[in-house]
Amino acid sequence: MQTDEPAARDAAAPAIVLVRPQLGENIGKAARAMLNFGLTEMRLVAPRDGWPNPSAGPAASGADVVLERAQVFGSVGEAVADCAHVYATTVRKRGVTKPVLTPERVARDIHSQAGKSAILFGPERSGLETEDVALARSIVTVPINPGFGSLNLAQAVILLAYEWSKGQTLASPPSEDLLPPAQQDELDGMIAQLETMLEPRGYFRPESRRAATTRTLRSLLTKPGWNHLEVRTLRGVLSSLAKPGPRG
Amino acid sequence: MQTDEPAARDAAAPAIVLVRPQLGENIGKAARAMLNFGLTEMRLVAPRDGWPNPSAGPAASGADVVLERAQVFGSVGEAVADCAHVYATTVRKRGVTKPVLTPERVARDIHSQAGKSAILFGPERSGLETEDVALARSIVTVPINPGFGSLNLAQAVILLAYEWSKGQTLASPPSEDLLPPAQQDELDGMIAQLETMLEPRGYFRPESRRAATTRTLRSLLTKPGWNHLEVRTLRGVLSSLAKPGPRG
Repeated sequence: MQTDEPAARDAAAPAIVLVRPQLGENIGKAARAMLNFGLTEMRLVAPRDGWPNPSAGPAASGADVVLERAQVFGSVGEAVADCAHVYATTVRKRGVTKPVLTPERVARDIHSQAGKSAILFGPERSGLETEDVALARSIVTVPINPGFGSLNLAQAVILLAYEWSKGQTLASPPSEDLLPPAQQDELDGMIAQLETMLEPRGYFRPESRRAATTRTLRSLLTKPGWNHLEVRTLRGVLSSLAKPGPRG
Repeated sequence: MQTDEPAARDAAAPAIVLVRPQLGENIGKAARAMLNFGLTEMRLVAPRDGWPNPSAGPAASGADVVLERAQVFGSVGEAVADCAHVYATTVRKRGVTKPVLTPERVARDIHSQAGKSAILFGPERSGLETEDVALARSIVTVPINPGFGSLNLAQAVILLAYEWSKGQTLASPPSEDLLPPAQQDELDGMIAQLETMLEPRGYFRPESRRAATTRTLRSLLTKPGWNHLEVRTLRGVLSSLAKPGPRG
């Protein structure tokens, strides 16, 4: 199921920039989060424990291609030098006069605008410094429960990657291979079969209720929009019920 | 920043049902993922290592309120007995004839429809069994990189919770004055009645086909989303058919 082959690269795919990440394990988890949604370009700014980091691989669960291609930079400025659009993720509201966008909005922007984009994520404990945020055009904040904000690095990455992937055509869900509803005459045949069975058992009595009862039954049975295989199955059920039962 | 206080409860908030979860740590991580986006109702079906599990708390990073309120059930059927809408998360495409929805669509549905919703998540390794999926109305699949599908349990939970939380701010009241679909246990009662009638007539023979036949029947009958009046009518139909017929 898992392969080392990344999804086809998209010019609009953003670089994920981890600023001073602390644990190799979290770098690996971020790589895994990225590749799930087709992102392959990771940039590391001054990772605390150097690079490569032996703890990253196992945590990546097969997303090795992302780690192998990761580039390391000494500063945020160098890491985003080739980028036209830089977004800084923050959890807390800050006294910065920059637009605060949702992940959804950022994803839409990235798909619609020309030029390379980068999304900055801060260190696990502290988040981005004010100087890092200053480099960004906009801030992106995941709207979370005001009473409990506890998103870890890989979770923040996965939510941004997920939103980005929605704009990718390859990310469309498996289209339903459902059969169309059965034709009206097939359905009528089934309903007639049922009515024939119910008639001798007095189901439609009293006579004054017959029209309403028939209508109710028809509404019930047309509601699901069963396809012709389903109607066939139900006719089998009815035929089986028409056989003499245990008391018959 | 983190408190034990959950977000205000929303009638439309879905229950998150973890089916046969293996590691306590993952139950804790799922709780954390939920609370980040304001979900507090966790249901556990036959957790492998029993409940409570000492590994869950530390992994929840403060989302203890979710774990404390978690309810444990013996089967998926019992866990969703009070739910009108059941969604099964699957990664792989399956040969099931149910609608496959995106997390976005499921979130929209949950906000717009009356009646309690539940989202089922399978065990870490294997995912949901076919019988678990059969209980659900629809399937929800996170569209991921076809070359690398490696979403863990907490990540799947966080994506669904995140999508659900988006509709929270809109807080639109369910507009339908239609009756909500009948609860799962009412539907189960009707299916059991039908099966009891079919059994002595040999409908489930040969024995080797029993499981598949039962599943097909269940899929057919859960598809329409009948409300409780409709289910009552159908039970009347079945009772009438159970009477000795003209040949009886």
